[in-house]
Amino acid sequence: MKTETALAELTTALKRAHALGTVGELLGWDEQVNLPSGAAEQRAGQSAALAGAQHAAASDARIGGWLAELEAGVAGLSEDQRTVVKQARKDFDKATKLPADFVREKAVQGSRGYHAWAKARAADDFAGYAPVLAKNLEFAKREAGYLGWGGREYDYMIDKNDPGMTAAVIGRLFDELKRGLVPLVREIAASKVKPRADALRGFSVEGQKLFLREVTERLGFDYNRGRIDISLHPFCSGTGSDVRMTTRFKEHEPLDSLFSAIHETGHGMYEQGLPVAQLGTALGMHAGMAVHESQSRMWENQVARSRGFWRCFEPRLRAVFPAQTAGVSTEELYLAINAVEPTLIRVDADEVTYNLHIILRFELEKKLFTGELAVNDLPGAWRTAAQELLGLTPSTDRVGVLQDVHWSDGSFGYFPSYCLGNMLAAQLWYRALALRPALEEDFARGDFSWLLNWLRENVHTQGRRFDALQLAQRVTGEPLSPQALLRYLRERYGALYLS
Amino acid sequence: MKTETALAELTTALKRAHALGTVGELLGWDEQVNLPSGAAEQRAGQSAALAGAQHAAASDARIGGWLAELEAGVAGLSEDQRTVVKQARKDFDKATKLPADFVREKAVQGSRGYHAWAKARAADDFAGYAPVLAKNLEFAKREAGYLGWGGREYDYMIDKNDPGMTAAVIGRLFDELKRGLVPLVREIAASKVKPRADALRGFSVEGQKLFLREVTERLGFDYNRGRIDISLHPFCSGTGSDVRMTTRFKEHEPLDSLFSAIHETGHGMYEQGLPVAQLGTALGMHAGMAVHESQSRMWENQVARSRGFWRCFEPRLRAVFPAQTAGVSTEELYLAINAVEPTLIRVDADEVTYNLHIILRFELEKKLFTGELAVNDLPGAWRTAAQELLGLTPSTDRVGVLQDVHWSDGSFGYFPSYCLGNMLAAQLWYRALALRPALEEDFARGDFSWLLNWLRENVHTQGRRFDALQLAQRVTGEPLSPQALLRYLRERYGALYLS
Repeated sequence: MKTETALAELTTALKRAHALGTVGELLGWDEQVNLPSGAAEQRAGQSAALAGAQHAAASDARIGGWLAELEAGVAGLSEDQRTVVKQARKDFDKATKLPADFVREKAVQGSRGYHAWAKARAADDFAGYAPVLAKNLEFAKREAGYLGWGGREYDYMIDKNDPGMTAAVIGRLFDELKRGLVPLVREIAASKVKPRADALRGFSVEGQKLFLREVTERLGFDYNRGRIDISLHPFCSGTGSDVRMTTRFKEHEPLDSLFSAIHETGHGMYEQGLPVAQLGTALGMHAGMAVHESQSRMWENQVARSRGFWRCFEPRLRAVFPAQTAGVSTEELYLAINAVEPTLIRVDADEVTYNLHIILRFELEKKLFTGELAVNDLPGAWRTAAQELLGLTPSTDRVGVLQDVHWSDGSFGYFPSYCLGNMLAAQLWYRALALRPALEEDFARGDFSWLLNWLRENVHTQGRRFDALQLAQRVTGEPLSPQALLRYLRERYGALYLS
Repeated sequence: MKTETALAELTTALKRAHALGTVGELLGWDEQVNLPSGAAEQRAGQSAALAGAQHAAASDARIGGWLAELEAGVAGLSEDQRTVVKQARKDFDKATKLPADFVREKAVQGSRGYHAWAKARAADDFAGYAPVLAKNLEFAKREAGYLGWGGREYDYMIDKNDPGMTAAVIGRLFDELKRGLVPLVREIAASKVKPRADALRGFSVEGQKLFLREVTERLGFDYNRGRIDISLHPFCSGTGSDVRMTTRFKEHEPLDSLFSAIHETGHGMYEQGLPVAQLGTALGMHAGMAVHESQSRMWENQVARSRGFWRCFEPRLRAVFPAQTAGVSTEELYLAINAVEPTLIRVDADEVTYNLHIILRFELEKKLFTGELAVNDLPGAWRTAAQELLGLTPSTDRVGVLQDVHWSDGSFGYFPSYCLGNMLAAQLWYRALALRPALEEDFARGDFSWLLNWLRENVHTQGRRFDALQLAQRVTGEPLSPQALLRYLRERYGALYLS
């Protein structure tokens, strides 16, 4: 009885702190979607005040008391209750070991950093961004230090995004992936099959919005519990009943907005699939960014680049854009959708070479943290790595080191999740296919419900019960590895480019 | 030196609490502009958590300590410092006398109330709204009770919006206004001059947006420090560098969106004109809702319904909408802009009869608080009063008691400010004209800067130094009275309808 009271009180306190956290997330969404240009400083003050309030709620001393009580009686707790307590302890320690002033300063720095990045990127001015980046790095290291990760700062940043993951584990997985991927990219590059670069042009923004809405709704995104808006860099925020995705539109690159929106739809459906009643506890929390990315990447790639998907949506695309698609055959369209061509820009990259973009960032980040690489040497190191991995050298930092938003607010250690997510997505995909071989025929009929329901049951509703490594083992029966991803890429792209 | 430290510490704490308050305001804006329909419950939890955090910041015991210190040394404070301390004391007492649970519950109720109202209005279902309204009334009375206003609950609600104002003062001003207004409305109703009801039809939303943007920007709204969006009920929120207005568009009533946007522009320019460095203290705070409404109403009515304004914008309107304005003469256009015709809907009302809508609501609100009127009898009482004051009986509650958003979140005592604002606007207008007789010629050239600068200097930058009664006396040399408003209405509308 005493345990149940402590658990109920703890849950209420966690939910309150979580609600303040989601308000902070909404401020972040608003900042990128709506904020007037002159309001950055005022917004920084709001973010700082809110971060302070959130920190106060998360570090409430009573939480420590309830936790101590529950931990003393841990033998009497159910598995789910233990999961909740374990995560709450982790979060509480994180909240109480970080000084309130530090949290406030970091929030201000994050807000300013975003604006400094946007300005530097527009002006192609790395020198204007370098001090911000150095400061973000310093903040990250201080944070790791406060939490007892001194000397393992990059592992700390990785663990923040993917509990249990380390740079060493990632390094091994990525090396194995590289060994299989580099030859494949080389083979495809040598192929005589080439997608038509000009296949899809002049797609009105209004038409794209219409088509995008139809696709994302059909996949299963619930627009009564979410929305989509426009921002410079597509992202997904919010959770449960209020999930907010963004995209952007380019008239001559309709696939860019469509596939980035489907990617965010994958994130969004994961968040909408979490148990709403448990929001704020580990049971209503996603399992880490690699698992999150496995959801976005599966819908974006395994699903939306499949033949089955396009048997359903090709006629709809032609109906919305009759003139623009008149001269494009079914095969040309499918090849454009599955174009493989190295590019300098990660978010424009095809799904084969995409992973090389991630390996590039992972290796640079790692060196920034160990001190092997100085911030000021980053543009040069980026150019060298791009040439080595992608066979391309950025002519300017805007298409090199300045292209990504992540580091601008101190989100280091996030990039690896994208590639880990790709591995997990492929592994989950083959498991789903084994259970439901007719999956692509479902898609051709516009029916995505079997896959969504299977993910709901095995991934979404599980909350944070299992981390990425555990989830892979549990759902697919195999440890996480790059082999399913390599198999998938070779099957799909081999059929197109190498047959 | 000790005083200065206390003042600096107090200011920092006030700014932090204020920043959390503005985040709450942003949540409110978002709720009406962006929130997915299924997210109301989740948002209620966010609002409650934030209200709790804001309350904690505003009731921080250290504020009480600094205040006591400053009040002990009040003789050594400047006028401005006294203003800051006085307002901080008022807010601190308000924050510390309201229990945190009450504040949280009230926030949840406000959020639910808005959605219940929107639903009830759509379904024309007063019975579904009555329990919410009764609960809102109960919350308002409890709040007044906590703050020592027991027995004077409605005065408390008025004072919240307009410091120093009472139901008795308003009753006297409104009675005097009624005596002058009823004959004027009767004379105009008997006039042979009638505006063409169908003059302006088929104005595309895109064209309206374009024209509206040009007008509001020219008047002086700074879009680098604000924005305009669409909501069911137009409003203005935010302050300083982030002011957010809303409007709505009707193809066959282009003047509706234009004038409501100009109204909100008046509010918005006031907020943008507050001293940003002082936000969070009385010196960076508006002077109450009557003064706020004086700004919105002056730009909407005295300015934007004037001949001078339309000498500037008539050619622009015709350029954006050539076909729609082709058959409309300059005089017909001007008469449509200044149409006087009793209507059941307050926000659609002309500026002559508008004040009667307010008097109606003031009298009903007052009786709700004294208990002379029960919530369930409100629809009937509304119908009777509408017939007496406007000569019209609502056929259904949707165009009667369900039309306004205000009471849905417990904003009682707000309506009188609209009419007090009209009085003050007219009084300020004649003072401005006395100083700058060529004002309308400025407008004809598209130059609104003299008026805006004069308001900046005499009203906006004054913050909360003076309340509505003091401001009227100080800026116009006369006590607040309805006579300037009556003079203005008779001059403008007499020339159109009675000459």
